[in-house]
Amino acid sequence: MLLRKGRLGGIDSDVLEFISSREADAWITQADLDVDRAHLVMLQEQGLIGPQERGLIWQAISEIEADPNLLGEGEDVHEAIEAYVIARAGPSGGRMHTGRSRNDEVATCIRLALRGQMLGLFDELLSLESTLVELAARHAADLVPGFTHLQHAQPTTLGHHLLAHADALHRDCQRLEDAYSRINRSPLGAAAFASTGFPIDRDRTAELLGFDGLVENSMDAVSSRDFLLETLCALSIMMVNLSRMAEEVILWSTQEFGYLEIDDLFASTSSIMPQKKNPDTAELVRGKTGSVIGCLVSALATAKALPMSYNRDLQEITPNLWRAVSIARSALRIMDGCYQSLRFSLARLEESAGAGFSTATELADSLVRVTGIPFRTAHQIVGRLAAAGQAPNPDDLDRAGQEVAKVKPSQMGYSADMLRHALDPHGNVAVRNRPGGPAPSEVRRMVRRRRSLIRQAQKRSDQRREKAEGALQRLRKTA
Amino acid sequence: MLLRKGRLGGIDSDVLEFISSREADAWITQADLDVDRAHLVMLQEQGLIGPQERGLIWQAISEIEADPNLLGEGEDVHEAIEAYVIARAGPSGGRMHTGRSRNDEVATCIRLALRGQMLGLFDELLSLESTLVELAARHAADLVPGFTHLQHAQPTTLGHHLLAHADALHRDCQRLEDAYSRINRSPLGAAAFASTGFPIDRDRTAELLGFDGLVENSMDAVSSRDFLLETLCALSIMMVNLSRMAEEVILWSTQEFGYLEIDDLFASTSSIMPQKKNPDTAELVRGKTGSVIGCLVSALATAKALPMSYNRDLQEITPNLWRAVSIARSALRIMDGCYQSLRFSLARLEESAGAGFSTATELADSLVRVTGIPFRTAHQIVGRLAAAGQAPNPDDLDRAGQEVAKVKPSQMGYSADMLRHALDPHGNVAVRNRPGGPAPSEVRRMVRRRRSLIRQAQKRSDQRREKAEGALQRLRKTA
Amino acid sequence: MLLRKGRLGGIDSDVLEFISSREADAWITQADLDVDRAHLVMLQEQGLIGPQERGLIWQAISEIEADPNLLGEGEDVHEAIEAYVIARAGPSGGRMHTGRSRNDEVATCIRLALRGQMLGLFDELLSLESTLVELAARHAADLVPGFTHLQHAQPTTLGHHLLAHADALHRDCQRLEDAYSRINRSPLGAAAFASTGFPIDRDRTAELLGFDGLVENSMDAVSSRDFLLETLCALSIMMVNLSRMAEEVILWSTQEFGYLEIDDLFASTSSIMPQKKNPDTAELVRGKTGSVIGCLVSALATAKALPMSYNRDLQEITPNLWRAVSIARSALRIMDGCYQSLRFSLARLEESAGAGFSTATELADSLVRVTGIPFRTAHQIVGRLAAAGQAPNPDDLDRAGQEVAKVKPSQMGYSADMLRHALDPHGNVAVRNRPGGPAPSEVRRMVRRRRSLIRQAQKRSDQRREKAEGALQRLRKTA
Amino acid sequence: MLLRKGRLGGIDSDVLEFISSREADAWITQADLDVDRAHLVMLQEQGLIGPQERGLIWQAISEIEADPNLLGEGEDVHEAIEAYVIARAGPSGGRMHTGRSRNDEVATCIRLALRGQMLGLFDELLSLESTLVELAARHAADLVPGFTHLQHAQPTTLGHHLLAHADALHRDCQRLEDAYSRINRSPLGAAAFASTGFPIDRDRTAELLGFDGLVENSMDAVSSRDFLLETLCALSIMMVNLSRMAEEVILWSTQEFGYLEIDDLFASTSSIMPQKKNPDTAELVRGKTGSVIGCLVSALATAKALPMSYNRDLQEITPNLWRAVSIARSALRIMDGCYQSLRFSLARLEESAGAGFSTATELADSLVRVTGIPFRTAHQIVGRLAAAGQAPNPDDLDRAGQEVAKVKPSQMGYSADMLRHALDPHGNVAVRNRPGGPAPSEVRRMVRRRRSLIRQAQKRSDQRREKAEGALQRLRKTA
Repeated sequence: MLLRKGRLGGIDSDVLEFISSREADAWITQADLDVDRAHLVMLQEQGLIGPQERGLIWQAISEIEADPNLLGEGEDVHEAIEAYVIARAGPSGGRMHTGRSRNDEVATCIRLALRGQMLGLFDELLSLESTLVELAARHAADLVPGFTHLQHAQPTTLGHHLLAHADALHRDCQRLEDAYSRINRSPLGAAAFASTGFPIDRDRTAELLGFDGLVENSMDAVSSRDFLLETLCALSIMMVNLSRMAEEVILWSTQEFGYLEIDDLFASTSSIMPQKKNPDTAELVRGKTGSVIGCLVSALATAKALPMSYNRDLQEITPNLWRAVSIARSALRIMDGCYQSLRFSLARLEESAGAGFSTATELADSLVRVTGIPFRTAHQIVGRLAAAGQAPNPDDLDRAGQEVAKVKPSQMGYSADMLRHALDPHGNVAVRNRPGGPAPSEVRRMVRRRRSLIRQAQKRSDQRREKAEGALQRLRKTA
Repeated sequence: MLLRKGRLGGIDSDVLEFISSREADAWITQADLDVDRAHLVMLQEQGLIGPQERGLIWQAISEIEADPNLLGEGEDVHEAIEAYVIARAGPSGGRMHTGRSRNDEVATCIRLALRGQMLGLFDELLSLESTLVELAARHAADLVPGFTHLQHAQPTTLGHHLLAHADALHRDCQRLEDAYSRINRSPLGAAAFASTGFPIDRDRTAELLGFDGLVENSMDAVSSRDFLLETLCALSIMMVNLSRMAEEVILWSTQEFGYLEIDDLFASTSSIMPQKKNPDTAELVRGKTGSVIGCLVSALATAKALPMSYNRDLQEITPNLWRAVSIARSALRIMDGCYQSLRFSLARLEESAGAGFSTATELADSLVRVTGIPFRTAHQIVGRLAAAGQAPNPDDLDRAGQEVAKVKPSQMGYSADMLRHALDPHGNVAVRNRPGGPAPSEVRRMVRRRRSLIRQAQKRSDQRREKAEGALQRLRKTA
Repeated sequence: MLLRKGRLGGIDSDVLEFISSREADAWITQADLDVDRAHLVMLQEQGLIGPQERGLIWQAISEIEADPNLLGEGEDVHEAIEAYVIARAGPSGGRMHTGRSRNDEVATCIRLALRGQMLGLFDELLSLESTLVELAARHAADLVPGFTHLQHAQPTTLGHHLLAHADALHRDCQRLEDAYSRINRSPLGAAAFASTGFPIDRDRTAELLGFDGLVENSMDAVSSRDFLLETLCALSIMMVNLSRMAEEVILWSTQEFGYLEIDDLFASTSSIMPQKKNPDTAELVRGKTGSVIGCLVSALATAKALPMSYNRDLQEITPNLWRAVSIARSALRIMDGCYQSLRFSLARLEESAGAGFSTATELADSLVRVTGIPFRTAHQIVGRLAAAGQAPNPDDLDRAGQEVAKVKPSQMGYSADMLRHALDPHGNVAVRNRPGGPAPSEVRRMVRRRRSLIRQAQKRSDQRREKAEGALQRLRKTA
Repeated sequence: MLLRKGRLGGIDSDVLEFISSREADAWITQADLDVDRAHLVMLQEQGLIGPQERGLIWQAISEIEADPNLLGEGEDVHEAIEAYVIARAGPSGGRMHTGRSRNDEVATCIRLALRGQMLGLFDELLSLESTLVELAARHAADLVPGFTHLQHAQPTTLGHHLLAHADALHRDCQRLEDAYSRINRSPLGAAAFASTGFPIDRDRTAELLGFDGLVENSMDAVSSRDFLLETLCALSIMMVNLSRMAEEVILWSTQEFGYLEIDDLFASTSSIMPQKKNPDTAELVRGKTGSVIGCLVSALATAKALPMSYNRDLQEITPNLWRAVSIARSALRIMDGCYQSLRFSLARLEESAGAGFSTATELADSLVRVTGIPFRTAHQIVGRLAAAGQAPNPDDLDRAGQEVAKVKPSQMGYSADMLRHALDPHGNVAVRNRPGGPAPSEVRRMVRRRRSLIRQAQKRSDQRREKAEGALQRLRKTA
């Protein structure tokens, strides 16, 4: 409160707690120190602060970095840092705030801290994607039932199924990369919103901090949080994708499905029912998806209809970001570990893939191909057979053909062998080798392509990290 | 993890953190100890536990109550308590869990802890409502501009305006009371979801804990969280109502409106602009409304489509409850203090109430009453005058009447005196003395009625507290 | 636009479409005509309109009621009605608007129309609840596996399971009844927000329209929509409850579960896979839950931070109400039909109820009861047995007891007969006859109690309908 | 229902209505016809259908295109089209469905229709952005008060303020472009989810329809809707940005602010208060922001936890997309027209920009620059002056300096002239000419840069349109 005693009287503790951002500020403390350093370097370069003053302030900042507990009370971390700096460096510590304001400072800190989180996210996301792709490679030819409406529809391969999740995650990565390009820009120097009359150099601080450029308009720079809304959007969609995987882990590990077993590490037992093995981590990934969606809604509802420029409501948006980032990152790691240790019941999956007349589609398709009857007619013939509830023999087929369309497939070149082949789940899958299909050969081709895409994405991520963290490391070592 | 070692191996720290509820469990630690006590009393009464075992366990519970830091690690507080109890009371400490499960235990704890929060909420809500009503009493006759579309519409009284907010809060109180009746019921004894074969007495534990009855069906008891969703709903609506008050405080304290001044305690200044006086607390009430809405969405999205009975997803719902309760309670206190210390600029408000031809409606109404022309015709005449942009004289009125409907009000009994009276904002307000209207007499009548309603609500709240907390106090003293 | 030509010029068609509420107004057209009638009766009783004028206007209203297509263009239905009335009754048709405004008119219409929808909702909700209760009566003793974490936990009865859903719906009914008490109040006479100087009688119009009282404060009356937010909340929670039922229908009808079959009427087949039987209606109930939650969020986000009194934003809230009401009512009907026609595979359910060592809890409990060892110790012994994966014999039990706690149950009075009984799922369920438990006797008791509760709720609903619709019928017949 | 009669019996009308998507399908009818055509061309090229059959089907499709009312009943448009085709072309019309399913068909149609909407959105968004930039050019030097916390903070220029909104919109455009790159990909050929055994050519249909590539994995292709969630996210953020503009239009047009007047076309008057001019269109833009956020929540909550692959819940997501797109596009057009016709009260804005000691920051800054005292000290001196409530003279300044820090600025080189200059709002703005600042010269530079950026974005949009719509036009003309 020290810094604001200029005009207002004392502030009651209830109110202080209400307006304090200190809890969430733990996420940006390091960023704030880096921002202070970049600003100081630039101020000195521009002749706005002397080397000695800069040295004293720099020293105080290093002390805080070494032990953040040195920071005292204060409604936010910016104030607490400045108070410490002034206490250590004397009144000239107040020069650190020359040509800036908490408004641009906090916007810069959030972007800097979020950037660091994003770099971690990319690694974790690509690791999970890679786990899925390698599992797909291993299970390129293993049969599983394919579902629509949670009903058996057609046989497919486990590799095909797993790649579907991997591809969704790859788009999540793209969205986060798109967001990164708008996150990693510097609002510093916008001051309260009107920039400043001091001859500061915004490009220089942006460079020192490893930003890719400016959020140019100073009013926009302090008041816009769409980079944050966008991140929450990308994370919400990613969590929805993870929740779909979690749902399958839960379903497939039921006694009824019995398609996989979760490793003990990712399960738990019951306090009252010792025979239980519960998919707790997958349930929590599913549940936390709701929490991340809620964070997004909080942020959107808060940002709505705020006039220019900075309003205190913005402070309330940020904790939702950190909550979502924290959940998303741990969910990625948990799902990665969970999938790596899943034990698929391949025999049961294969058996199940062929059950329930799930080859009906291929039967209809092959009737079309061989006999030339229209697809809808074949569909009706097969529907008639399906009502009987079991795999048909050639006589069944002729009878159904007769009833539906007065045709006998056996007399139109459709042999018993063809029928047997159409009803074989392995054959079903093998013939579906169009781009994106479940045939083992196609799955293996897709695996190779995705390995390459992951490598490229990882390389982009490494370059981003190199630029961003490299800049900060150099900055911190500036003498 | 001790308690669950029956089946599963070690659990990695990342996973433990992911599945832990310990942070949110701080809200239910005391409740858990009370639930343990009630369960123990009942177990002994039913002969399911001996007095000595009960005594040892009771002692351990009292130790935890005196110093919660005694609790060790554990993925939740229930486990940590039981571990401590067994460590202190020996293996027979394990009897505490006879005939129950964490599923009914946690549901009971949440209800108990929420009940306590609700009792605090009622007091705070009624206090704010009372503040508004007393302010209305003081300002029953003070003129303010009344707005629709944020445009001046008709004059009203400040008392009338403030009572509109008070009445909205009164419905919030009703909704919270309705929710309370569904919160304060006991799921204890439902065990994992199938109740138990031990001859426990569910009614007895409900009585000991001050519940109003049971959540009877044991599967429903452990798996339903609609009491929690409902509370979040009531709090979200209440926050929307508070956000409307906050918006007005922000608007009315602008330089442009200049209708009120916020006390320094509830404002702040700027780190860069020392002349500023910012309505930070009101902005945060508005912003935190978004957060509470987000908590509700999190809970709804998480609860959706969960099959029977307990699923781990439920754990993720509760922190949203505590976050919302905490925000709502502090927002009530802050708004109460803020309104109590507002300084209204009564002169400016009165002047503004009469500006902008805001008496046009009464002019049209009085034309109808005196001359008998239809309302729509009068509306068109006055619309013609409004286009001129200033208060009319009798000649203006006749001219407009002539143009619109070929009538001259002055020849139909509408005197210059009547015109003057219709244009007087005080007269405008005084004549609006229908039930619910802005006339000072009606405002004063409404104030008296609301004082009585608040007293009744406070009495109901006191009775609830007496029953709920009285039971707990008696329970804790049971030897 | 006719009525508003007083001040503004022409309005472009794009803008007109943007601001028009005509689509949603179809929900309130009848209500508006009833409100007009009540207002007219009162105006005449108060001497504010003559019998002849009243007659002409009444006639025009009856014409619209007979053929709503008579209404012309207009940005809302109120305007369109008034335009028609003036066209038919001449300028004195404009008297209908004496002492009121579109602001109170629309608020009254929404409440009136919503009230009618609620009356339908009560019937549909109670019908579904009754269906569940009667199914529970029929299946009071049929075994099903009981789940936690979607894993088999303990056996229960189908009746017990179904009653859990019924009880959740009963609370939904309570919440909707609570909401009804705040919906069915009259804002009419509040005019634009400041009431009116005409000597209208608000209580009289409230009585004529079958309202239970006033929304008294006139500013509150036109600007508050919390009755609508509250309804959306209650519907969202109800849909979450329905989505849980839908999820189970989907799961239980998979090939893997095979616990029930959906009637063809509520399923569909595939355009390409003729053997499929898809639970489309249940999936849509689940999906539409998301839509209703979205409607609630729309309304909350729109209502947030609106200053007094009426703002045009309010218009955007109402369509969300109608959308949610429409979805909720059809979902209730669909689920009712769906459940009535479900075919449970009772043999498969019973078999499954006993599989997977789901009787472990009762085994541990009976060890405690017979041998007196602490619950946690028994839990550990049974956990040891569970790891073996199959039901134990007496030797297994002694061996596990020895390893875990150096006890031999067979030497502590625990007989082979006791073991067999503990492992029998029927015995498991029968012994769980505490209040709310799954024992057939307890399920039958709960069924009887719920039948009575449903009758009472239906009676309350009938009384509400009698009062509300009776008033409207009398009003419409007023000469 | 015709097509699905293979297995299931009749479907009741209630259920049909519940599961029907026909209302929303109006958005994709044209797209479906185009998809049919592309599929037909490819089938013929691959020898899967003969030219005569193709011709008959093509003819039926053209008939529907000419008169969509030819379509009969059916639960969705795909079924209705196929039924019509079979009715006109005979059983061989059933060949149209060879190698595809409704699952890939509907996913393709949504993407195609959404792509068309996006192309319209780009134009409308860039038009509004351009309007803001040109207004900024016109008002580059006009003073306005700059706000933080809705309190006057520092003077700025109207151009600077308007460009802040323009820059936010530019990021919206980027986000929509990013989304477009993931929307415009073809799922066609994925069939039900397992692709097909027919030798179809997915790349060819993608090319014929103007897609940029495939959604490759066939399971992903039919089950993922993240392209739609992403679009809803981008639209929600864009609406939040528009709501901020709308809020300012509402505020600035109040009697109290009096900073601008809305053109009659975008305002309305009151049914009861003829003097009113209400900013209805801006209020509705603000309100509809809530609706779009709700659409996003609906979609996220519905998509959460859906297992692979297609589930009927997906059908419920799409109407939320169309609702949001429709709102967003009209909101852009309305805001464009509204801003183009705003009349700013430049004199009142300039006067207001200098009121309220809003130049305090520059005073403090200039003290730092001239006298070398630390910023925090200068801040405290100016804070002391601010408490006095009016612009200071040199003596006031010395007195405050003395009290706060025992310094007299006048003796440190700070002249009366400097003080006068620091207090001049024009000077304040002129000196803030850093990148992104409010100085007229900097505003003009930013205007030039933004004109170029808009031109580039428009060019990219035109190229997208050329590729997408060009392909469709060529396809439709294929003989």
